[in-house]
Order: sequence, then structure tokens, then C-alpha cells
Amino acid sequence: MEIRTDLAMERLGPVEKDGKLPEGVKFRRENRFGQEATVVEITGKSGERALGRPKGKYVTVEVGNVLRRDKDSFHSAVSAISEYLGEMLDLEARLPVLVAGLGNRDITPDLLGPLTADHILVTRHMVRDLPKVFGHFRPVSAVVPGVLGTTGIESAQTVAALARHTEAAAVIAVDAIAARDTGRLCSTVQISDTGIAPGSGIGNGRMALDKKTLGIPVFAVGIPTVTDTATLAHDLMERSGRDVDEEFLRQHSGGMIVTTSDIDRRISELADIVSMGINYALQQDMTMEELEDLTAGL
Amino acid sequence: MEIRTDLAMERLGPVEKDGKLPEGVKFRRENRFGQEATVVEITGKSGERALGRPKGKYVTVEVGNVLRRDKDSFHSAVSAISEYLGEMLDLEARLPVLVAGLGNRDITPDLLGPLTADHILVTRHMVRDLPKVFGHFRPVSAVVPGVLGTTGIESAQTVAALARHTEAAAVIAVDAIAARDTGRLCSTVQISDTGIAPGSGIGNGRMALDKKTLGIPVFAVGIPTVTDTATLAHDLMERSGRDVDEEFLRQHSGGMIVTTSDIDRRISELADIVSMGINYALQQDMTMEELEDLTAGL
Amino acid sequence: MEIRTDLAMERLGPVEKDGKLPEGVKFRRENRFGQEATVVEITGKSGERALGRPKGKYVTVEVGNVLRRDKDSFHSAVSAISEYLGEMLDLEARLPVLVAGLGNRDITPDLLGPLTADHILVTRHMVRDLPKVFGHFRPVSAVVPGVLGTTGIESAQTVAALARHTEAAAVIAVDAIAARDTGRLCSTVQISDTGIAPGSGIGNGRMALDKKTLGIPVFAVGIPTVTDTATLAHDLMERSGRDVDEEFLRQHSGGMIVTTSDIDRRISELADIVSMGINYALQQDMTMEELEDLTAGL
Amino acid sequence: MEIRTDLAMERLGPVEKDGKLPEGVKFRRENRFGQEATVVEITGKSGERALGRPKGKYVTVEVGNVLRRDKDSFHSAVSAISEYLGEMLDLEARLPVLVAGLGNRDITPDLLGPLTADHILVTRHMVRDLPKVFGHFRPVSAVVPGVLGTTGIESAQTVAALARHTEAAAVIAVDAIAARDTGRLCSTVQISDTGIAPGSGIGNGRMALDKKTLGIPVFAVGIPTVTDTATLAHDLMERSGRDVDEEFLRQHSGGMIVTTSDIDRRISELADIVSMGINYALQQDMTMEELEDLTAGL
Repeated sequence: MEIRTDLAMERLGPVEKDGKLPEGVKFRRENRFGQEATVVEITGKSGERALGRPKGKYVTVEVGNVLRRDKDSFHSAVSAISEYLGEMLDLEARLPVLVAGLGNRDITPDLLGPLTADHILVTRHMVRDLPKVFGHFRPVSAVVPGVLGTTGIESAQTVAALARHTEAAAVIAVDAIAARDTGRLCSTVQISDTGIAPGSGIGNGRMALDKKTLGIPVFAVGIPTVTDTATLAHDLMERSGRDVDEEFLRQHSGGMIVTTSDIDRRISELADIVSMGINYALQQDMTMEELEDLTAGL
Repeated sequence: MEIRTDLAMERLGPVEKDGKLPEGVKFRRENRFGQEATVVEITGKSGERALGRPKGKYVTVEVGNVLRRDKDSFHSAVSAISEYLGEMLDLEARLPVLVAGLGNRDITPDLLGPLTADHILVTRHMVRDLPKVFGHFRPVSAVVPGVLGTTGIESAQTVAALARHTEAAAVIAVDAIAARDTGRLCSTVQISDTGIAPGSGIGNGRMALDKKTLGIPVFAVGIPTVTDTATLAHDLMERSGRDVDEEFLRQHSGGMIVTTSDIDRRISELADIVSMGINYALQQDMTMEELEDLTAGL
Repeated sequence: MEIRTDLAMERLGPVEKDGKLPEGVKFRRENRFGQEATVVEITGKSGERALGRPKGKYVTVEVGNVLRRDKDSFHSAVSAISEYLGEMLDLEARLPVLVAGLGNRDITPDLLGPLTADHILVTRHMVRDLPKVFGHFRPVSAVVPGVLGTTGIESAQTVAALARHTEAAAVIAVDAIAARDTGRLCSTVQISDTGIAPGSGIGNGRMALDKKTLGIPVFAVGIPTVTDTATLAHDLMERSGRDVDEEFLRQHSGGMIVTTSDIDRRISELADIVSMGINYALQQDMTMEELEDLTAGL
Repeated sequence: MEIRTDLAMERLGPVEKDGKLPEGVKFRRENRFGQEATVVEITGKSGERALGRPKGKYVTVEVGNVLRRDKDSFHSAVSAISEYLGEMLDLEARLPVLVAGLGNRDITPDLLGPLTADHILVTRHMVRDLPKVFGHFRPVSAVVPGVLGTTGIESAQTVAALARHTEAAAVIAVDAIAARDTGRLCSTVQISDTGIAPGSGIGNGRMALDKKTLGIPVFAVGIPTVTDTATLAHDLMERSGRDVDEEFLRQHSGGMIVTTSDIDRRISELADIVSMGINYALQQDMTMEELEDLTAGL
């Protein structure tokens, strides 16, 4: 049985041998703004094969159960997300960026992307129409492409078409993803410079959203909101040192997900945190307080 | 570890010995309108002790993945729910009834009760104000009491106060509940004449909602929408013939729920089915088609 | 044609004669925390007859187009609402209060009451269960009684039943109301010590919610969110010095309302302001910042 | 003052002289499926100048206060909309079509377009992936482009990009529009073959969405959901034979709209009717009943 996880760091465990990572894979822990983080780097083909993920950098910030109302931890989480994302972007301050909120608005754990996009400080039209007033902003646009089943169009195609139209220098794609360990649900944020591979995420797009398909860098911000029940059961049994009867597991877990009991509220809190992290990374001349004021009505 | 389930039929398995049920417990299978159903009857003290549930009748209708758009299975499910509920009610056609939609509107799997109440055909004020026109309807009122954490008042107390005010002859309480087997999530409806015991349901009320506390019969309609992850893991391991390390399970499953991946849509479909089943049981002079017309705008 | 307005101050104009108010009516302007306010006092029978409103005090705070993100004006508006309400309440700090959010959740301009109730800091159950920890809070509960058409029960009766159950010393009823002048929509808050008269508000309850019916003082917080189109047309024509053909007006304005084009967003902002004003008036030991933290998750 | 209306038929009155229409404008009444309809045709330059609208056909179907639950009038309204739209489309049955739901999801009267798009039977991906099973469907896709203020991208540009990507042979754009006469709010449907002109609709796009900008025919389905208060007042005064003080009107009506008091419910009902009318026009091999089944879960 393939263990389903979109967190690169969760793919390390099964491939470690005698405490050693495969060739082409690096791992380290960091702490920024008081937030624990892990950094996985896949540097070559053998690393790609081992982890089943494309070459690149995958940072996981452990934000925990942070709440907007707890200003200190909110600001720490936003600062860490923003700094990691900003370092990856490394983009001249006036180049346009498109933010894509992937996922289905009608499925609670999948609402994260659309809700985050709703809170992005959108400036492209203002910079264009009133350059004297808004010229110091980076031109940012946002799109919620919907899902194949309700639009008939692959979300990656919609994002590609709008990236071209807006002449974006980079895309930031936000998505709800799957984790293996339920302890990471709604409490970790993965930031990567590799875009989104086909079949990952809940949205399950079939076309990749990456530099190869779009021609510009694609950065992915993913938050695990669900675990497969088969993965959960497998994980629990394996960790308790038992053999796993995979056929049995599959049989008893179709169409089910594991999520947090307060998922509705967590999605809303996390969209606040992630959107602010993105806004802060994109508009580097602004303070976090100014950005909070400008986005308070969204 | 206590296995958490609010379905009486799921409490039978663990107490069966050599294929025999404990004294004071009866069980049978039925089929009405093409719907499989199970009937558990607890007839005495020893049955109450064995199943940890009060004396009374618990019917479980297996509606499966019924959709409103599939008219035949929708009508079968509504007919079965309505007939079982009607037989339990056994109430003179003009006596007033209060329908209570328990649960928290802000938590998707718990929205079932409130949404069902929203679709109840409410007639009390019309019967009172225009008896000549509406006198052939049973006076029905509906309440969504909210949850303790957002009102400061136990929902059972709100229901009790309004049952008195409306001089209700019976209460029907609708609630999202927990099941052990994920295969039963969003696909079974339990109807019982015992009211709601403290601590059951997701809402987790502390005061019972039953004949003892209200002075009138209380009928409960419950639909399992979640399973504890601890219960899921326990169940999987036990069924695969393994010992269960309970401490381990607890540790890895706090604050998590298992639910269906399409829970948002299922809640909406199930509220349609259950509300129609209740409407049909309460207004016995009306055809299902007339009731569909009268409630289509809700 | 009766001009429809629930703002006492808008009833002054038509009854003024030669710049003089009728006997039994007083009027003054005030300014608190930088907020313009008007105070109408009806002191006797002749005032009641003239204004068609019961004896008591009606304060209108002109909050304008205040936004939560504009911290200074937000705090001024909250402080003014809170101070006026606190002075009227004049209630020993530990006596219980019930807040009622009147109106229909499914009608945008009428959502104000329910949404405000959702943001009330509810403490009754915590004070009761953990008096040592929470004993310094006033016991507050909140109810959203719904409307007659969807519950079959008059909202005033639900509030009365829960006021008795919670042994409330006072009720604060929040409601969306009607104004004559569209310039006041979503920008004024009326606070009164007279409760809610039958037929006022959008909810159009038929039973009064006042000291006579409940036996305890009832304070009303109303925000005008709509104007009748007939009232608007009447007003415009009268103010432009023309005769009004009332039959004509009625004919062309049934079932229509005038509201602000950004009503969805205004309702949400105003519920924030009013709920915070009430929370601050009720929990006088707390700072506004502490209350913002405690209610941020609601 | 310019009277604001997006209904071509409401632009006739002011330009009629002695009962005669300007050159290049034709008008007739029709009745199909029991639904009253008007047809305005602008056939030349002088007609364009007179009505301020581009050359083409504008049909207004008067659906009245039709409710989904009233099956007969629902089917009549759907049939009439579908037939007029189908005649304009006049498109070979297998050619792809893109449906665009214009407007802002967060503003109730503007929600009509997005909600209609949500209920479109989307088939493009199924026809492409499983042509043997779904080859008899027309490939249809749907997009909700959002509004400039929340995306930074003109909605017409998003539609243009996706029309190209999906190789659509035609676009159907659904939008909430403005009417002069409040009696037409939420009760008339305008269908035209001229696309959407800049500045019309509530969404207020600045780029036209028509054959000139897209290279393919654009059909517009518009439902009036609001009236300007200035327009309302102007209209009432003019019709009552009075002079209009336009400066006065403007002063008293900024930022206000007139809409129906049950707008939330009407939007939902109208999205049902319009989406079904479009589905029925696009999939001409299907019966209305089959389409109702296929879209019941949306």
C-alpha cells in the first residue's frame, strides 16, 4: 500500500536506513521567529526516485494550533512563512505575481486555497490604473480556478492562462494537502519551490503546475487538512509493531477521511495566517500592521 | 477503552456470547419499502446494563448513499423513516409536536440537526391564527437551541422551556451522532423512543432530553456522521485479531474525527430526507408530493 | 401614509411645530468619544401619543461608516455604545443578563441580530461550573430565537422562556430596524430602555418584548438596515416641496426595500461593533483588548 | 440624469415619439409556453444611437414570481428561456460552449451569475475522457471569473482566456443587471445576442464581452436584481407628472440600492431557473427531467 502524504518530510522515514538518508536528499531542522521548521532538499535524480518528489526545497513550518487572537504566535507564524517564501521567491520588487487558491469551495477541508486567495491583497489593477499612487506595490492578482468536476477545465490550465495574461513572473499556489501523521493536520505549513505535482493535493489535478508546464517558477504553499483512513490505520498498526493486512485496511476505509474536529474554524484561521504570510512576502515595503489594515475588510 | 457509539445495534456485538444476546435485549431484521432495517428492543434492567442504554426501541434504517435526485430510493427512505417514527409516535392527529434540531451550525458534521429543523413544515402559528384554513394540520413548531458554548444554556433546557410553552404532546429531537463502523456514517438513521441520554451525540449535552426530564415522550432521530479515530483504530485492530494497545491509541488520536469525504453534501441530502420523513409522519393527511411542494422553498 | 421608521429621532420632525417639540418630549445632542449622538426622552403620555412610542430614553449614536480595521473609530464607536448602554442598564456586576439576537438568518439585512448574538461573550455556564475561575464575570447567555415563520413560536415568547430559565435580571435585544432617511442606514445605532414594541423591526413580532411582558427591564439595540421604498419616495418628494400622491406610491413600491449596496459587508462589521459594545458594557472588569482576545474566535 | 437600466425594453419609452419608435428599432410582444415576452431588435446605427445599445436582439421573458416548487410555471419559464436562447445560439450540437457566471459572490444581489454557473451541467472533461460514454453531450465548461477588485484581473479577460483554451464556439454570460422599474426586479430575464457592453451590469466590467473582443458569439442572460435609488425616485416623480430636481435626487441616494425584500431566496430560485434554461438549450438530446436528475446534486 502506498502511504499517502504530500509532506516531503513524511516521506523521509520509510527511506531512511540505519539513520542514513538516501543519496541526493538533505535534511535539517531550523527555528525562525520561535517556530520549529524542517528543511528537506532533494538535490538529484536518486533523491527524486527515493522520495517520489521532484528536485527542490521543501520547508515545513510547525505553526501548531496558532490562533489569530494570540497576536504573538500569529505574528511569529506569519513571519516565518513569509521569510521562507520570500527567500524562495527572490523576486525583484515590482515583478507581477499570481496567487492561485486551489481546491473546492464546497468541501470544508478543501476550502483552504479559495479562502486564502480571498484574503490576498490584490493590487494589479490599481498599479496599472494609478501608477503614481500605487506604483510602490508589487502587482498581485489572485484566482480561484475551481475544480475539474464543476468547471470542466483543469485548474492548472486556468492558472496557466491567467499567468500568461497577467505576465506573471511567478505563481504561488495554495492548496489543502494530505499528511500521514494526524498530529500534523492543520498545524504545519509546507512551502516548496517545486510547484504542484499531478495527483497530489485533495483537488487531484492531473496536470502539473510547475516551471515545466508554466514556464515560470511555481511556489506551493500546502497545509495538510486530511489523512486517509487507510493511511491512519496503517500508520497506527505499523508504529505499534504489527503486521499490516493491507487488503483488510483498504476494505474498511473507502471514501473516509480523518480530520480535526474543529476543521471549520481551523480552515478560517489558517487562511488568515497563510494569506498574511504571502501578502507580507510579496509587498516587502509594507509593515505587517499596514497589511492587516489593508486586508481587514476582505 | 470505551468504544464510542450512539447506535444501539453496534453495542450488541461486544455483549453477544456464543451467539446469544443478554437477557432483556431483543433483536430482529426487517425490510420496509425495500429498506433494510434492524430493531433492537431493551426490555428490562439487565438489558439496560448490558447495552448502557435506557429501556425502549431502537430502529436503524439503512438508507445507504441515497440522493434526493434518485426519486425512488428517496421516497423509499422517507417512507421507511416516516413509518417507523409514526408507529412510535402513535399520536392523535391534532396534538402539537415540537421538533428540535440539536447541534452546532458552525461544525459541518454537527449541522445535521439545525438543517433538518430548517426544513420542517412549521404550522403552529397558522393553525392558531387561521384555524378554518389550517385546522387540518397538526400544530408543529421547530427550534434550533444551539450549543452550551455559544448560548450559555443547555440545549435540553431550551427545548424543555419551548415544549412547555407550545404545550407539545411530544418532542422529536434530531442530532448528529457517532458510530463505531465507518461504513455506517451518513448512511443509517436511528429512530428511538427513548429520547437522548446525557453525553451522547456530538453536542454532548449534559442534561438528558427524555420523558423523565420533559414529562412528555421524546423521540430521537440520529444519524452517525463521525467516528472517533481511537474507535476506528481500535476497531480495525480488533477485527484483524490483534491486541490493542489502548494507551498508544489514545495518544495518537486526540481531537480527530473520521467522516466521509463528501460530508458537506451528505449533510444537506440527509437533512432533506430526515425532515421529509418527519413531516410525513406528522401530517398524515398530506401526500408526500404535497409536502414536497410546501417545503420546497425552505 | 404612515412613514415607517423605528428611530425615535426621525419621529420628531413631523411633530415639531414652529421649532417646538410637543409636551412630554425632550431632545438634545451630545458627543462622547468623538461620536455625535442624539438623545430623545419621552416623559409622559402626551409624548407617547405624539411620537407613537412608549415612555423612555432613545439614544442614537452616529457611528458612520466605521470599519473594524480603523482601530480608532472602531474603539470610539464601541466606547460610546457601551457607555450609553451601561448607563441605562445600571446593573450590579454579577447579575445575569440574556442577549437576544432577533431576526431571520436567511435575509441579509435582517441577519444583524443573529450575527451579533454569535459574537457575544457567553459566560453563564462557565460561571456556574467553575465559579472560582470565572466568578468575576457577569453570567451572560445568548439566544437566537428565529422568526415565527420558521419556528411557529413568537420570538418574544422564546426570549421570555429563556429569561425565566436563566433568571436574567435584564434582557438586551438586538434587531435590524427601519429608518426613514437612507443616510442613516447602517450608520446609526439606537439604544433604548423601552424594549421592543409589537410590529417594529423587520422581524415584525406581534408580542412586545418589554418590562410589561417579561417582568424585567428590556434594552433594545437597533440598527437601521432598510428603508421602505414608499417611505423613500414619500420622503424625497416631501423634502423637494411636492404633494405626495400616496396611492401612487404604494402601488409602485410593494415588496421592495432600499438598502446599502455593500449591505453584506456592513452587517458583518456592525455585528462586530455592536457585540463588542454589549460585551464591554456587561463585563466592566475587562479591558476592550481582553474582550477582543476572548471573542476573536467567535 | 441618465436613467440607469440594462433592459433594452426600458430604453424604448423615453425615445418613443407620438407612439413611434426611432428608425432602426423594432418591438413586438410574444407569448411562448404561457410566458409573456417582449422582443426588441436594433437593426442599424440610428437604433444603436437612440437606445445606447449595440445592434442585435433583446428578448425579455416575464417569468414573474415563479418558484421551483410550482412545477408548471417552473417548466414554462425554463422552456421559454431555453427556446429563445437556443434559437439565438443556433449551434451544431457537438460544438463546445463556455458559460460564465459574472458578479461578486459576496454581494447578495450580484450572486446570481456565480450561483447559476454552479448549477451548469459541466461535461467538457467527460466528453474528452470518455467519448464513448459521453459523446452525445455537448462539451460545456463553466467559469466564475470573480470581479476586478478581488482578482486584479478583468472578468472579461478571464473569460476570453478560457474561451480560447476550451476552443469554445460561443460564450453564454450570466449576470445580475439593473432595471428602472422595480416591478421587473427578480421577475424578468433578458436574453440577447449582443454580449455584454462595458459598464453595464452590477459587476461594472470595463472591457466588453462580445464578438469583437472574443472572436466568437457572446450571448447574455441578465436578470435585474437592483434599481438605483436615484432612478427609482426619478421614475416615481416623472410618472407622477412632476419636475425632477436631479441634483437633489443624487444627493439623497448615493450608495443605496432598491431590491426585493426576499432577494436572498429569489436569487437562489432564479439561479435554478436560468441554469436549467441554459442546460436545456445546450443539451438538446436530453429531456428536462433527465437534466433535473443530473444537476440535482449541484
